[in-house]
Amino acid sequence: MDKIRYKMKLAYDGTNFSGFQVQPNKRTVQGEIEKALSKMSKEEFIRIKGAGRTDAGVHARGQIIHFDYPRYIPEDGMLRALNALGPEDIVFLESDIVDHTFHSQYLAKGKMYHYRVDNHSLKDPFTRFYAHHHPFDIDLKRTQKALAFLEGTHDFTSFASAHSDKEDKTRTIYEASVAIDEKTEEWIFTFRGNGFLYNMIRIIMGTILQVADGRRPVEDIKKILEAKDRTTAGPTVEAKGLCMMEVYYDEDAFK
Amino acid sequence: MDKIRYKMKLAYDGTNFSGFQVQPNKRTVQGEIEKALSKMSKEEFIRIKGAGRTDAGVHARGQIIHFDYPRYIPEDGMLRALNALGPEDIVFLESDIVDHTFHSQYLAKGKMYHYRVDNHSLKDPFTRFYAHHHPFDIDLKRTQKALAFLEGTHDFTSFASAHSDKEDKTRTIYEASVAIDEKTEEWIFTFRGNGFLYNMIRIIMGTILQVADGRRPVEDIKKILEAKDRTTAGPTVEAKGLCMMEVYYDEDAFK
Repeated sequence: MDKIRYKMKLAYDGTNFSGFQVQPNKRTVQGEIEKALSKMSKEEFIRIKGAGRTDAGVHARGQIIHFDYPRYIPEDGMLRALNALGPEDIVFLESDIVDHTFHSQYLAKGKMYHYRVDNHSLKDPFTRFYAHHHPFDIDLKRTQKALAFLEGTHDFTSFASAHSDKEDKTRTIYEASVAIDEKTEEWIFTFRGNGFLYNMIRIIMGTILQVADGRRPVEDIKKILEAKDRTTAGPTVEAKGLCMMEVYYDEDAFK
Repeated sequence: MDKIRYKMKLAYDGTNFSGFQVQPNKRTVQGEIEKALSKMSKEEFIRIKGAGRTDAGVHARGQIIHFDYPRYIPEDGMLRALNALGPEDIVFLESDIVDHTFHSQYLAKGKMYHYRVDNHSLKDPFTRFYAHHHPFDIDLKRTQKALAFLEGTHDFTSFASAHSDKEDKTRTIYEASVAIDEKTEEWIFTFRGNGFLYNMIRIIMGTILQVADGRRPVEDIKKILEAKDRTTAGPTVEAKGLCMMEVYYDEDAFK
């Protein structure tokens, strides 16, 4: 019998995971999902594939995975089963049976991430795993001007980890913006683009915060892009502020 | 030299504490604060007193404590020192040097608590320690009518734990209300009163939710109050939805 391909959307609290990708003797998102699936399907191991590999501590509200299941289960039933068998820090939000041509990673046309910054002088015990604490005066106008330099198609070599194995470091960022949450006063940064290099958003954030609090001139962002040299950019900030919000499969939906 | 009395406001994530009150071999809020104070003052053990004892899993954004410190430290210095020496899940928000007549517990005239209910059908991994998940249809009008019965001065025997050691179970509730958060769609219940019996809000919530989702008629709340019998009320719901928001020392400020 033909296997059935499932596409699922999930949220997870990345705090207690050593990232998405399976690793020996580590608790990972992929590992926990494959464990839950193997409880369901006694016959065989089922490999899952994610749209993107999030690092240790990085969260998700819209990660997409796909896998081939040996027999038919209604979409709702798959959702319920995985929510029942999976751990508490992973929640499956949507389940769809898709064509065998669907691939969560290769067909992804773009992604949207949030990075949360807590700018209060004191820490907040409730966001200690979910926001980066930056208790220095930051300027909204400067921050917005700096972000604007990032929008468009650029070679992001300067903002990629030296460990990035991608040859072509050209990516298009459709949106690099910030909004201050009215209630929590958190600074929520949004990055929407056709792809992001390893650590790219965390290095961008480390650099943007240096501009935001006045340690660097706004124009540095332009110069850093042109330098194509990782050492010209700022530090890689904490993983915990980062959350994968959405994966886009429709070319035109997110531009 | 005279000791200096400090009044401090603090927030804590109750998840990893066995409640506020010190207990042998348990990690408690009081225990951790006294440990931090003893790091500061090598000479002597310093006992702290809290406005209210929160149970295991209960959170706080406005708990008040007081203690006598053997020597003068500026208010700001005390705040910085305790934030530096205390654990990550406790944050000290305000520090005041007060008169020796001040007492965090005995002088408290009232308190305000929130109880958070997540009414979505699916759980949210990010609020799993902070909101009670109640994935059943609940009706706002019914809930508000039920809450209205609780406002005023009543004997709350029916809504007190059988372990409550208070003789007089009459309390005044100035506000029992609910608001739906626009962004998260969480139901945030507010209880403001001159005092709350042991488990009182959690038993009220267990009963209110039975009214809210139609398992009980609205008028039951009135009947349960009149019965003065714990067995007539609903179950004690989870601690994790509860958060101590504010302690009032000014008689007129909160009515």
